[in-house]
Amino acid sequence: MRWTLAAAAMLVAAVPLVTQPGPAVAQSADELKNDSATPGDILTYGMGYDLKRFSPLDQINAGNVADLVPVWTYSLAGNRGQETQPIVRDGVMYVTTNDSSSAIDVKTGKQLWKVAHQYPEQTNRVACCGIVNRGFAIKDGVLYRTLLDANLLALDAKTGEEKWRSQAIDFRDGYSMTVTPLVVGDVVITGISGGEYGIRGFIDGWDTKTGKHLWRRYTIPGEGEKGNETWSGDSWKHGGAPAWMTGSYDPELDLVYWGVGNGGPWNPFVRKGDNLYVGSMLALKPQTGEIAWHYQFSPNDPFDYDGVNDLVLADLEIGGTPRKVVMQANRNGFFYVLDRATGELLSAKPFVDKLTWADGVDMKTGRPIHSAAVKKMYEEGEGHEVNVWPSALGGKNWAPMSYSPKTGLAYINTLNIGWNYKAVEPDYRAGVFYFGAEFGWDWPQGDEPRGILRAFNPATGEKKWDFPSAIPMNGGVLSTAGNVVFSGAQTGELYALDAETGKQLWKFQTGSGIIAPPVTYEVDGVQYVTVASGLGGVYALFSGDERLAAVPPGGAIYTFALFDKMRATN
Amino acid sequence: MRWTLAAAAMLVAAVPLVTQPGPAVAQSADELKNDSATPGDILTYGMGYDLKRFSPLDQINAGNVADLVPVWTYSLAGNRGQETQPIVRDGVMYVTTNDSSSAIDVKTGKQLWKVAHQYPEQTNRVACCGIVNRGFAIKDGVLYRTLLDANLLALDAKTGEEKWRSQAIDFRDGYSMTVTPLVVGDVVITGISGGEYGIRGFIDGWDTKTGKHLWRRYTIPGEGEKGNETWSGDSWKHGGAPAWMTGSYDPELDLVYWGVGNGGPWNPFVRKGDNLYVGSMLALKPQTGEIAWHYQFSPNDPFDYDGVNDLVLADLEIGGTPRKVVMQANRNGFFYVLDRATGELLSAKPFVDKLTWADGVDMKTGRPIHSAAVKKMYEEGEGHEVNVWPSALGGKNWAPMSYSPKTGLAYINTLNIGWNYKAVEPDYRAGVFYFGAEFGWDWPQGDEPRGILRAFNPATGEKKWDFPSAIPMNGGVLSTAGNVVFSGAQTGELYALDAETGKQLWKFQTGSGIIAPPVTYEVDGVQYVTVASGLGGVYALFSGDERLAAVPPGGAIYTFALFDKMRATN
Repeated sequence: MRWTLAAAAMLVAAVPLVTQPGPAVAQSADELKNDSATPGDILTYGMGYDLKRFSPLDQINAGNVADLVPVWTYSLAGNRGQETQPIVRDGVMYVTTNDSSSAIDVKTGKQLWKVAHQYPEQTNRVACCGIVNRGFAIKDGVLYRTLLDANLLALDAKTGEEKWRSQAIDFRDGYSMTVTPLVVGDVVITGISGGEYGIRGFIDGWDTKTGKHLWRRYTIPGEGEKGNETWSGDSWKHGGAPAWMTGSYDPELDLVYWGVGNGGPWNPFVRKGDNLYVGSMLALKPQTGEIAWHYQFSPNDPFDYDGVNDLVLADLEIGGTPRKVVMQANRNGFFYVLDRATGELLSAKPFVDKLTWADGVDMKTGRPIHSAAVKKMYEEGEGHEVNVWPSALGGKNWAPMSYSPKTGLAYINTLNIGWNYKAVEPDYRAGVFYFGAEFGWDWPQGDEPRGILRAFNPATGEKKWDFPSAIPMNGGVLSTAGNVVFSGAQTGELYALDAETGKQLWKFQTGSGIIAPPVTYEVDGVQYVTVASGLGGVYALFSGDERLAAVPPGGAIYTFALFDKMRATN
Repeated sequence: MRWTLAAAAMLVAAVPLVTQPGPAVAQSADELKNDSATPGDILTYGMGYDLKRFSPLDQINAGNVADLVPVWTYSLAGNRGQETQPIVRDGVMYVTTNDSSSAIDVKTGKQLWKVAHQYPEQTNRVACCGIVNRGFAIKDGVLYRTLLDANLLALDAKTGEEKWRSQAIDFRDGYSMTVTPLVVGDVVITGISGGEYGIRGFIDGWDTKTGKHLWRRYTIPGEGEKGNETWSGDSWKHGGAPAWMTGSYDPELDLVYWGVGNGGPWNPFVRKGDNLYVGSMLALKPQTGEIAWHYQFSPNDPFDYDGVNDLVLADLEIGGTPRKVVMQANRNGFFYVLDRATGELLSAKPFVDKLTWADGVDMKTGRPIHSAAVKKMYEEGEGHEVNVWPSALGGKNWAPMSYSPKTGLAYINTLNIGWNYKAVEPDYRAGVFYFGAEFGWDWPQGDEPRGILRAFNPATGEKKWDFPSAIPMNGGVLSTAGNVVFSGAQTGELYALDAETGKQLWKFQTGSGIIAPPVTYEVDGVQYVTVASGLGGVYALFSGDERLAAVPPGGAIYTFALFDKMRATN
C-alpha cells in the first residue's frame, strides 16, 4: 500500500460502514402477534401489538432493581433528540436516529452495521417538534423505518442494505415522517406528520416485500365522501389531522387502531364543524385501510388536542363486566376506554388534576361538555382569549404509557401545564407554520410540578400514586412483572419506581435528557433494560424552560442489567 | 408571559447557559506542587507536575476492580474526538471539548455550567490530526484552556465567565493550539501546534492574572542566535518544531521540561543540519523561558519523530545509584532516561520490539546511531524509499504513559507500525500541509497486534508484560496504588489491568472510541475513575483502519466507582 496523507484520508472516508454481518433474522406474522408474550425479543413498537409496554420478565424486580448497572453504551453520534424505541431480535438490537440506522450486539454493545441516511436539508424546517425518529418495525429479516422527508425505507436486517424506498408525499408541502411503522401481515402501515403546516393527513398501507403503495386512508374525508360535510368550505384541504404515532392491532378482530391529530390551523373558526377525523381514533382494516368505526375525542379541536396518543389494548373489568378495550390517555386530559370491537364508549374520566376546557364527556353522545369558558370562546370568536388546561402539550404528550395487567394500572407521563389561548386569523403558506393562534404557557404555581408520572386505574378512573417532577417526563413508560416501572427524565435520569407504590428504587444519570421509551428483554438468561438518551422534542424546543439549559444535547443507547449478571459476563 | 411560537423559540435560544454557581475554587501554587500527593483533586495535566499519572488511591484495587460500574455519564454534545483530561476541585469536574467548556458536579454528573467557544471555521483546516482539546489548567479559581485558533482563554471556575483571552499568533499561517496549559507560579505556559504546516514553533509564558504575554521561547533559534547554524539556509523559518504537549515541572530545580516536535517539512534534505530544537526536550526556566539545557533525541528528524511525548519525572535507581530523572517514551522508539538537573543521558533503550531507523544511541554523544538503511537514505537523498520502524505514528504517540513508583514500571500505549518513506520536493504554502514526503504504512503481519500496552522498567529497559490490541490504544494510561492500570481502547472499552501481571480484570464499553487519558480521584470517601469517550485523533484519521468504521463518533464523560459505593449513594 502506498498513498499520500490526502489519499489516506480519502480512503478512510470510503471504508464501508458494514463491517460484519449480523445473524440470521426472520419473523413470521405469528411472531409479531405473540411479541407481548416473548420477552426474548422486541419486534413491535409498544413491545406488543397491544402497546402495553409491559414485560412478563421479573429477573429485575422491585426487590433488586437498586442493583441495576449499565453494561454498555452506544454512541448514536447525533444531537437532535433521540426518541427511538429499540427492536431486539436474535441478540441484535436495531435503533434509529433521524439520519442513521444501527445494528448492535446486545451482549457487547458493539456496532454490527450502521447506515447513514440522506435527506434534503430543508426537510428540517417542516418538523415542528424535533428532528427525531421513533424506531424500526421488523418482519422476516427486513427492517422498516420512516425518514423525515416522508419516505418509508426497508433495510436488510443482516447488513443494513436498503431493499426499497417509497415516498409517501412531497415533504415541501409540510409533510414529514417520524413514526415507527406497524407491520400487519404483508402490510406496512405508516402515518404522516405535519399538523402545524396545513397538511391533509393520511395513513398509508405498503407492501412489505416491494414497497408498493397499497392504500391510503385520508384522515380528512374528501369531497363527496362521508364526513367531508363536517368541514366548512374548503377548510378540509389544509385541515391537519396528522397521524404521527404508531397504532395498535388486535389480531382476532383484525383491526388496527390509529390515532388522528389536531385540526389545522388551530383556529377553529375557519373550519367550522366537527372536522372529522381530527382528534379521533380510527379502527381500520389493515388490508384495505377501510374504517370499521371511529370515535372523535375532540370535535372541532381548537386546542391542538392531537388524538394520536398510544391506543392500548387490554382486558378490563368495567363495572363488573369483562371487556376487551382500547384505551387512551388523550392530550385533552380525559382517559378514554372503549370497547374495541364496537367503539362503544365505556369510560372517559380525567387523568390530570386540572382539566378546564370541558366539564366532562357525555357518555351517551361521546361528546365533550365544553366548560363555560370554552363556550364563551366559541361565542366570542377570534381574538377572545381563554385560559385552558391542559395546554397544547396535553395532559399527556406523545410519550407512550404502560399498562400492567399485573397491577391493573396504567403508568402515564402526565403534564400539569395550561395555556392562555387566542384564535387569530391564519395565513396558509405551504410548508410554513399554520397556527392561527397566539398563546402563552400557564405554568403551575410555586413548587407545583409541571409533570407527574401517574399510576392510574383505567377501570375506575382513580389514581393510585404520583411521582412528580419539576420538569415533565416525556419519553414513555415501561412496566414489568417484576413490579418495576421505568421512565426517563428530560434531565437525564432513568428512574425505576415501585409499580405498586411509586417509590423511587433506583436512578441513573445518562448524560443528556431522555425523551425515549425504555424497553426490557432477555438474552441468554440476562434481563436487560435499554433506553435512548438525547434531549430534544417538543418540550425542550417550545417550553422556554430555562432549567433545561443545564442539560447538554446528546445521543446514546444505554443498556442495563443486574450487577451480578454484568459481573458474570464481563 | 405571552408569545407566539416563533418568539418562544427565540426565548429558548436566549436562555443563559450558566444555571447555577459552582462552589468556591482556589488553588495556591503550593497546592499545584502537591497535586500528586492529594488525590482528592486533580489540578494538573498528568495528575501532578511530574506527569506520573499515578494515584496513591487504593479503594479501587486489583482485588475489587471487577466491581467497577458507571455512576454517571455526561454528554459532551460533540463528535470531533475527545482528548480532554478532567480537572477536579472541590467536588467539581472541569472538562473541555474543542469548542466548549463544562463544569460538572462529581457526585451527580449534573452540569453546573457550560460555555460555548467560537472560533473561525477555517481553523479546522490547520489541525492535522483531529479537532481536539486536551483540557484545563487551574489555579486560584481560574481555568486556563487553549482554543484551536491559537488563543489562550482564562475562565472563572465558578461561572465559566471569560476573564481574558490572549492570542498567541495568527492561525492562518498554520498554527493551532490543543495543548493543556501548564501553570507554574504566576505564569501560564503554552506550546503551539502546526508541525505539518511549515510553522516556526514556540513556547509562551503568560501572566495568570491578566493574560499579558511574558515571554516567548522559539523552539527554532532565530538568525544570530545559538543553534540557528544547525539549519541550512532559510530552512529554519518554516522548520516546524511544534511544542504541542504539556511539559512537566520540578519545583525544587524550578525547571520546566517541555518536548519539541518534528522538523518541517519531513524531507530532511531541504533543512540540512541537526535542526535544533527539532525532536528535542528543553529544560526551561518558567519565569523567563530561558533554556537551562536541552537534549536532542532525533537530530535532523526525517521521520516525524516528535519529541513532544510526556516527560515524566521520577526517582529511579540506575545501576545502583539513585537518580532524579526525567524520562520519555519517544516516538522514535527509544525510552530515554536523563538526569533532570544536568541533562546527562542515563539510558536510551528501545521500548518497542521493532526499531529499525537506528541501531542504538551513542551514550557518549547522545546521538542516535543510524541504521544502514537510514544511512543509505541520507546518501541517496530525495526519492530514495526506506522502510522504517516505528512510523510517523511513533513507537508511542502523544497518549501519555503512567509511571508507578509502587511497581517501578512505566505503562505505555505502544504502537507496532512501520512505514515506507520517501522524501520528495516540498512546496510551502501558508496554512497547508507541508510534508515533503510520500509514504505508506507498513502494518504488522498476520495476527500480530498493531498496539501493545506495555509495562516497561525504565531502570533496566526490560519489559514486564504486554497487553496487545489489534487496534492500538492511543489515549493514555493511569496507574494506582491499588495495583490497577487503566487505559481506553479506540474501540470503546475502558480496560482495567493488573499492574503486576497485565491480566485483564475489567472492562466497560463506552459507546465510542477512547483517545483520552483516564484519571482517578476521591470525593467524600468514594474513589472515582473518569474518562472521556469520543473517537478521533491521528490514528482514526490517517490509519485507514477499516475496523474503526464500526466505532461510532461520540462525546461523553464516563465516571465509575465500585458497585457498593454507587449503591450506597444512589
